[in-house]
Amino acid sequence: MKIPQILLIEVQHRPGQLAKVLKAVGELNITVEGLDAVSRTQDKTTWELAFDIEQGQEQVVEDQIRSSGAARVIGQSDRVFDRHRGGKIHMESNVHFDDLKILRDVYTPGVARVCMAIHDDPKIAKDFTGINKTVAIVTDGTAILGLGDIGPVAGMPVMEGKAALFNQFGKLSGVPILIEPKPIDEFIQTVANIAPSFGAIQLEDIGAPHCFEIESRLSEMLDIPVLHDDQHGTAVVVLGALLSAQRLANFNLQDSVVGQIGLGAAGLGISRLLLRYGVKSLLGADLSQDALDRLERAGGTPSSLGEVMEKADVVVATTGAKNLIKPEMIKENQIIFALSNPEPEIEPAIALENGARFAADGKNINNVLAFPGLFKGALDAGATKFTDEMLIAASNAIADSAEGEMLIPSPLCTVTHARVAQRVADAAHREEGRLISYDR
Amino acid sequence: MKIPQILLIEVQHRPGQLAKVLKAVGELNITVEGLDAVSRTQDKTTWELAFDIEQGQEQVVEDQIRSSGAARVIGQSDRVFDRHRGGKIHMESNVHFDDLKILRDVYTPGVARVCMAIHDDPKIAKDFTGINKTVAIVTDGTAILGLGDIGPVAGMPVMEGKAALFNQFGKLSGVPILIEPKPIDEFIQTVANIAPSFGAIQLEDIGAPHCFEIESRLSEMLDIPVLHDDQHGTAVVVLGALLSAQRLANFNLQDSVVGQIGLGAAGLGISRLLLRYGVKSLLGADLSQDALDRLERAGGTPSSLGEVMEKADVVVATTGAKNLIKPEMIKENQIIFALSNPEPEIEPAIALENGARFAADGKNINNVLAFPGLFKGALDAGATKFTDEMLIAASNAIADSAEGEMLIPSPLCTVTHARVAQRVADAAHREEGRLISYDR
Repeated sequence: MKIPQILLIEVQHRPGQLAKVLKAVGELNITVEGLDAVSRTQDKTTWELAFDIEQGQEQVVEDQIRSSGAARVIGQSDRVFDRHRGGKIHMESNVHFDDLKILRDVYTPGVARVCMAIHDDPKIAKDFTGINKTVAIVTDGTAILGLGDIGPVAGMPVMEGKAALFNQFGKLSGVPILIEPKPIDEFIQTVANIAPSFGAIQLEDIGAPHCFEIESRLSEMLDIPVLHDDQHGTAVVVLGALLSAQRLANFNLQDSVVGQIGLGAAGLGISRLLLRYGVKSLLGADLSQDALDRLERAGGTPSSLGEVMEKADVVVATTGAKNLIKPEMIKENQIIFALSNPEPEIEPAIALENGARFAADGKNINNVLAFPGLFKGALDAGATKFTDEMLIAASNAIADSAEGEMLIPSPLCTVTHARVAQRVADAAHREEGRLISYDR
Repeated sequence: MKIPQILLIEVQHRPGQLAKVLKAVGELNITVEGLDAVSRTQDKTTWELAFDIEQGQEQVVEDQIRSSGAARVIGQSDRVFDRHRGGKIHMESNVHFDDLKILRDVYTPGVARVCMAIHDDPKIAKDFTGINKTVAIVTDGTAILGLGDIGPVAGMPVMEGKAALFNQFGKLSGVPILIEPKPIDEFIQTVANIAPSFGAIQLEDIGAPHCFEIESRLSEMLDIPVLHDDQHGTAVVVLGALLSAQRLANFNLQDSVVGQIGLGAAGLGISRLLLRYGVKSLLGADLSQDALDRLERAGGTPSSLGEVMEKADVVVATTGAKNLIKPEMIKENQIIFALSNPEPEIEPAIALENGARFAADGKNINNVLAFPGLFKGALDAGATKFTDEMLIAASNAIADSAEGEMLIPSPLCTVTHARVAQRVADAAHREEGRLISYDR
């Protein structure tokens, strides 16, 4: 598993020097992910050089850079850690207590009136508390990013990142809830017991297959929207990108053969959403027979890697297996989404060289585009469940926001997030009462 | 039970007119809690008149005001509700995503480095997440203010108020956690299961006697500080006020006879803290034999209302029973804290008229002064438990902040809150390892 690294290197400010450094790095078969000038003296520039490497390989890279003779490694950048220092979120008061009268109004005794009003008519809680704008971000830490089962506390930076994005792009309060892995019944009961605190539940980085049961049981038990982001967030963005591709390349997605390689949480979520969208032929490949059975119950066709690559017009891979797709497997005009992070099943550039019509990896197809608007829309509409129509509406909003040759818009575009929320809310109003129902 | 009300009344802007209105209100035996001019035309002023009344008595008051001939009731002020609209807290990002580089640093892929660093060395979670600055505010809604068992959702405005105060006075993130009343084992297990998300647990408005078991079991199970605010927050402020009284009236609290009337959560918490402080003779009165037994196990002496009033130099009442203490029961120079909200066991003014040396009610003795600094200090010191020494240090800080004839300082004084936090942290460092241990 690779980890992102940032080195600070000092390079002579002369033509060709930086190129020597990058050539040396390239010889280690490392792709440069970022390069920023952070300071410059008269004759030297300090660069932040970002790349992903296996843990423990740092020294090899440093030695290689030194051996280029063009740079001095002056340290490791702490930029990533600095941005995390003290945490990425905090609870902020909407009230400023600068007067005892305000304390009397919003604390005792005034607050008693509001409490009694809610007691008399519980539905006004959504007007006079933040419950309806608050989303629990719940994890057991069993599938944090591509890092696997590292525990919920080590996953907290991811949960705080989600909460920070909820704040900026959905005007929602995300509250990380870390639960040590428990028997599934106890995990579910714990989430249900604290659910009155929240307007919705986002399940996050929970491993397969227990994620499927957790999501469907909580969704049944609770009268608030529950969504496992790993399954549906990525699926929404994949469908959005395919709708963009359809517009650009003039084919019909529903009539295309889609192949899904890897049927974990994301792969099964993508398969289900594409089937619900109307894709008629969906082939799936996975090493687990249970996963293939789940796909079949959802309406897909169990298949193999070889068959998928040979027959599918659209290939989506979510396996975690680097370089699983060989260049010679690519068919002319295939669409290849190799989504494993940080290392895709095939580099998009190589897929394109070998005939792919479109290619993308997990750095492009990012679920940041989906979840803030999905939850904002569901909560604004007062939805009690997420429906397929709401997810597909989000995909359409994403596709409609992509301009020119782009498959998806920038994840930082606030207009896109607002559009996703609006379309999801509209769909919720249209489809009140229809539920996502899964065979398990 | 009384509820605060605010009427908007229009009064002729002439001498004596407002007096007529207030006289009419006084004749209903209603005490004015607030009076604010909100607008003025040439000849009329609109006032916000705040008072506490029994639910359903609104019309009687309005009729009485009209009958004064001096005012027109033009409505009920929505000021309290307006200040609650949309909730009183929200989760705020410390990061602004205005650049894809920032997204790469604090979300994928950069966040993976921080996750792995925490996985390798869990104690750095306190540096790179907000866990250590986050306090769960947990309630089952069984004892919300003086309103009783109105359920956790109706209690949310109180929890949000606590969180808002944590933000302003402790620089901490308070996260309300509402749990529908459950069997005690399940309630405790639920809180323990989500505890990894937080640096500390504040138990709030949980009824007696189950609050005692919940607090002591959670405190034993978890390696983070757990505090039931109703027991200890009020106790800290009561001890602070008594330390001020000691300074002003030149008596020795430890050698005084203290009488505690009402041995629910607050009453037992006050008794325990005063005993730990060194009070040698503590008499307690309650209608419940269980409560008297608990007091005895804590080192107090079961007694009766009559005996308490007769023998005690200091009387603290937390019964919820309005006018329980008759004026003729007051002894010369007694200190009377009648803390039930919104209606005290005796009005402080009446106690003073009848010979009390000091008198206060629950509007003065407010736990706002205690909890932000208690948690801030405990978390800053890395304490795993609250100890008696930490609570007593907070009381001392409060007493030291009271100026002149005041028993306690303003709850809005940030210097006081910072002092409480500092003294609590100092005490935690001195007393590492000593625990509050309760007999149950």
